[in-house]
Amino acid sequence: MKAAVLEAFGEPLALKDVPIPEPGPGEVVVRLEASGLCHTDIHTAHGDWEAAPTLPLVPGHEGIGIVEAAGEGAAAAVGARVAVPWLGTACGECELCVAGRENLCARQANTGYSHDGCFAELVRTDARYVVGVPDSVDPVEAAPLTCAGLTTYAAVRAAGTRPGDRLAVFGVGGLGHLAVQYGRIAGAEVVAVDVVPKKLELARELGASHALTADAAPRAIRKLGGADRAIVVAATPVAAQSAFASLKRGGTMVLVALPRQGVFELPIVPTVLKGITVVGSIVGTRDDLRRVLELHASGETRVVTETRPLEDVNEAMADVEAGRVLGRVVFDLRA
Amino acid sequence: MKAAVLEAFGEPLALKDVPIPEPGPGEVVVRLEASGLCHTDIHTAHGDWEAAPTLPLVPGHEGIGIVEAAGEGAAAAVGARVAVPWLGTACGECELCVAGRENLCARQANTGYSHDGCFAELVRTDARYVVGVPDSVDPVEAAPLTCAGLTTYAAVRAAGTRPGDRLAVFGVGGLGHLAVQYGRIAGAEVVAVDVVPKKLELARELGASHALTADAAPRAIRKLGGADRAIVVAATPVAAQSAFASLKRGGTMVLVALPRQGVFELPIVPTVLKGITVVGSIVGTRDDLRRVLELHASGETRVVTETRPLEDVNEAMADVEAGRVLGRVVFDLRA
Amino acid sequence: MKAAVLEAFGEPLALKDVPIPEPGPGEVVVRLEASGLCHTDIHTAHGDWEAAPTLPLVPGHEGIGIVEAAGEGAAAAVGARVAVPWLGTACGECELCVAGRENLCARQANTGYSHDGCFAELVRTDARYVVGVPDSVDPVEAAPLTCAGLTTYAAVRAAGTRPGDRLAVFGVGGLGHLAVQYGRIAGAEVVAVDVVPKKLELARELGASHALTADAAPRAIRKLGGADRAIVVAATPVAAQSAFASLKRGGTMVLVALPRQGVFELPIVPTVLKGITVVGSIVGTRDDLRRVLELHASGETRVVTETRPLEDVNEAMADVEAGRVLGRVVFDLRA
Amino acid sequence: MKAAVLEAFGEPLALKDVPIPEPGPGEVVVRLEASGLCHTDIHTAHGDWEAAPTLPLVPGHEGIGIVEAAGEGAAAAVGARVAVPWLGTACGECELCVAGRENLCARQANTGYSHDGCFAELVRTDARYVVGVPDSVDPVEAAPLTCAGLTTYAAVRAAGTRPGDRLAVFGVGGLGHLAVQYGRIAGAEVVAVDVVPKKLELARELGASHALTADAAPRAIRKLGGADRAIVVAATPVAAQSAFASLKRGGTMVLVALPRQGVFELPIVPTVLKGITVVGSIVGTRDDLRRVLELHASGETRVVTETRPLEDVNEAMADVEAGRVLGRVVFDLRA
Repeated sequence: MKAAVLEAFGEPLALKDVPIPEPGPGEVVVRLEASGLCHTDIHTAHGDWEAAPTLPLVPGHEGIGIVEAAGEGAAAAVGARVAVPWLGTACGECELCVAGRENLCARQANTGYSHDGCFAELVRTDARYVVGVPDSVDPVEAAPLTCAGLTTYAAVRAAGTRPGDRLAVFGVGGLGHLAVQYGRIAGAEVVAVDVVPKKLELARELGASHALTADAAPRAIRKLGGADRAIVVAATPVAAQSAFASLKRGGTMVLVALPRQGVFELPIVPTVLKGITVVGSIVGTRDDLRRVLELHASGETRVVTETRPLEDVNEAMADVEAGRVLGRVVFDLRA
Repeated sequence: MKAAVLEAFGEPLALKDVPIPEPGPGEVVVRLEASGLCHTDIHTAHGDWEAAPTLPLVPGHEGIGIVEAAGEGAAAAVGARVAVPWLGTACGECELCVAGRENLCARQANTGYSHDGCFAELVRTDARYVVGVPDSVDPVEAAPLTCAGLTTYAAVRAAGTRPGDRLAVFGVGGLGHLAVQYGRIAGAEVVAVDVVPKKLELARELGASHALTADAAPRAIRKLGGADRAIVVAATPVAAQSAFASLKRGGTMVLVALPRQGVFELPIVPTVLKGITVVGSIVGTRDDLRRVLELHASGETRVVTETRPLEDVNEAMADVEAGRVLGRVVFDLRA
Repeated sequence: MKAAVLEAFGEPLALKDVPIPEPGPGEVVVRLEASGLCHTDIHTAHGDWEAAPTLPLVPGHEGIGIVEAAGEGAAAAVGARVAVPWLGTACGECELCVAGRENLCARQANTGYSHDGCFAELVRTDARYVVGVPDSVDPVEAAPLTCAGLTTYAAVRAAGTRPGDRLAVFGVGGLGHLAVQYGRIAGAEVVAVDVVPKKLELARELGASHALTADAAPRAIRKLGGADRAIVVAATPVAAQSAFASLKRGGTMVLVALPRQGVFELPIVPTVLKGITVVGSIVGTRDDLRRVLELHASGETRVVTETRPLEDVNEAMADVEAGRVLGRVVFDLRA
Repeated sequence: MKAAVLEAFGEPLALKDVPIPEPGPGEVVVRLEASGLCHTDIHTAHGDWEAAPTLPLVPGHEGIGIVEAAGEGAAAAVGARVAVPWLGTACGECELCVAGRENLCARQANTGYSHDGCFAELVRTDARYVVGVPDSVDPVEAAPLTCAGLTTYAAVRAAGTRPGDRLAVFGVGGLGHLAVQYGRIAGAEVVAVDVVPKKLELARELGASHALTADAAPRAIRKLGGADRAIVVAATPVAAQSAFASLKRGGTMVLVALPRQGVFELPIVPTVLKGITVVGSIVGTRDDLRRVLELHASGETRVVTETRPLEDVNEAMADVEAGRVLGRVVFDLRA
């Protein structure tokens, strides 16, 4: 089968023919229809993080497809459409898994990182960690929901957002354009912040009450009364500084983006005096993903995508890195 | 009446005779029996913080005494024993006051900072923000509970501590020796961390399961399985770094101490991947203070004090700064 | 001034000329523009509840008007538009007030029940417990928000509603038509239940995904997968039974309506085995009310009213009791 | 192997020789050392509940023993000591399992109810749902912790108990004597209620501040100021009525005991006006059980048991039903 393979960090992915995967016990093989491109895939390709993956590797963890084969004891039904997320598997038994925080499991394996992922015609994965996709949801739209949607849905929740809160979203890209919408869905007045005018325009279309350029944002948000919640999905420590400076007393800031070797210089005195909370949030659980897909099936969200063939994977990565993409790139793997 | 007055930042307090305060509408005047010395008073005397107070000023915000006079409409009964805390008054109407977070009110006034405090024979204060002291509680013990106790009680709560959690307390001084006890009261296995051996010994006596020297702590705590919660009551950014390094996945760190111009370099990637929460916590509410005093009346806490006459205020401040005091200095103002 | 006065339980209110109120210390007198009719006023007029009020009494606790006079020390500005809610005053100091639950204060006084209320040209009230009305909000629309809106906003919150939850609202009257909307605002899929077809139609217009007749509701909701949350705003114990029968495992039911001497026969075994939560919820706090008014100013809610002159108060009460009113009756007191 | 077998509802269990179980994939067989007798086993033997089990059946779900054999892919190590709880297995994938509420999973199977349990020398069970027992914990003490301990630990948590709360425990038997202790561990002032004097004496020894006879309890508790939390572990609807009558405004009542066909007549008006919460709580999760066992290993709890041979199972059941047992009956299955 065809796959985009990472053979060396810093090199382009190679489009190659690789062996067809067979499902082991408890596993399924999924024939992919659509596969989203996440910034994490770019970090993977660059070898940006400390615990680098073993190569060669097929990246990709926003896969949508049809279960083609199921191993012994695998629960998912052949023929069903499923989403294959970053959380490829988890132990299911540790304190975090049992307490509803499987996304933090120390023994998790990650699709397109610990093992081959979704930049391919087929992917092999743990049947228990795929999530069913409602029939009415288009695979190309479901793909970004599987990571960008899930991550921002969970971040809006981690922020403790309630109706009437003012929620600031720093960064309106693949993640941010969905964060704006989940903020609205949770009843918040959303302030979107970015440096690119057309992204601010998109944010307004998606329901943001205010759309501000990054440099003016903290002062402007404080003028509105300050943010109850702020979500940082722009991968620079500067965004975190701005988010912090935008908060109300008692406010909460959620860190989502992963700037390489990034440090946020948290000022201790205002953090204490103002009772500020800072929360790190990574993807979400299967239950969160089900809700994300259901909300889309109910017409609550709009996913902005650019569809491309898998052959353009390297060019697509360059475009995302350069900020030239509005919303999310999705590889269409049908036909 | 006698009072210790701050006339210039960086200068010793002057023991002087000052006019007797009269209660205005809604106010009481309290004849103090005991008055605790908090690190904040030392910051005040040094003019350490940006929003410096107007001088001359009587510091002190751990005052215990008897209501001697009540102004028009003041609720507190003459003759009652009350605690006079840092939160001298708050607006009672803003979003934070109404939502149970009066300690964060932007319009609060602070005893011994915004207006004259408790290093004196008498203090004038808003009758609504004093808290009754149960009869069985000794005034000298009640004094440190009024700020050190309240603050650490609230921090243990802000940490989300539950029975069976491992809670690390960084710093075993006036605050920390109470934090250890509130951790125990909340059912946690407490790990105490300090640099002074006799403080570690005290922590063990007060119920800590482990008492570790600061340099060895992060590694030793991780070996135990990591801390679910960590509370930083030592006023150095290094303590925050150690606390962060001690946390489990999904753990929470509470910042309490106020190092001058301190910055905590929060590493973004582990914060996100491990789902870490960092919370700033400042004093507590009147309801928290009532609970703190009730817990002491029930025999649940032990307050370690060194009693001194108010005349020794400057020497006492020097001793606290040098780490020469075990527990809390309390000025005995009776007789 | 003109007022509708309750002189004897079970008798019609009498429209009379009564003395103009003067503000005491901390009080304001508000010239009313609009005054909503709540079911509670009908209970009051009937003397339905155990702790019956002292007569004569002016009912009404959904008052909107302009501050005309302020007593000594009253914070509210003369000329400002304010809402005068059921929570006329509270102690501000007890455990519940301090913990953000002032709506449960045991020492509260209630507008139109403990003292004269808003079925009048003027009302005298504690300045600290009125809430400012945003300029863009129409007084007639603000009136029902002051109790019906506040109560259902708080109920949706008490239910723990989160995006993607299925929320069932039992009763689509003055309260229910707003509960449907707050459910939507909080991101829920709303199921509305009533016996009157045109109320179900209204619920659909207001965003309910499903609108069901009462008898068919439990079975139909279970078929959808069950309700995560259910709110009971219909004043019959039968509604509570239906709501309970509609819940999912782990679900929460919020009781709001006050059927006279009503008992809900809670079946213990399913409550335990399914981990069900039942919560009583009464009005809300000033912070909740501010949010309710802000949400309306932002265009998030639609208030359905029938405007009438105060002279029609007795007829209006009869119509509400008979279920002949869609939405809320508001007395227009301007001109 | 030897087992106590239920062959017909209402009949005594029969001590018989039954076939030795073999572990299937993912299963272990555990050689039992100790097996607690829970009131649920008595309900099982009587066929009290609607969804009656298939007979013949070996009851028992507080099993402690050593893993003797492991099936293919079973995680638990042969030779390890484990606890075999009521939650024999769950789906691991539904909304409730993923959200940290596996104890509510609709597809769960229950030890000693859905399949053969622990009144036997050996039990076969899903390896993922057993929990390791710390080395220092005695098997006879671990047995009651596996259900009675777990259930009350989770109930204290479901009640939202925090330090300084007043917690009333209704019923001081196998469950209640542990509920008293978990209340203390969580920092509460505990009020124990029962009808048997020696049980009240036991409660005092275990840390209850007050021990009251059932008829006097509601009034006496209200005199103390009311209960913030109440836990009902006595299996009569009357206990629930008393618990409700003991609550403070804003209080929470947790239902645990399962009176046959029991109905609690919840009075709606006070529930709403006082903001009361009623929660059903059933056993707990594996994470809860780990904490319960760790707390015991740390010396925090004392388990009161009467050890008997399995041969006395029918007599033991009769004694428990008649209230003749202090604490918990445990069958010692070692040689």
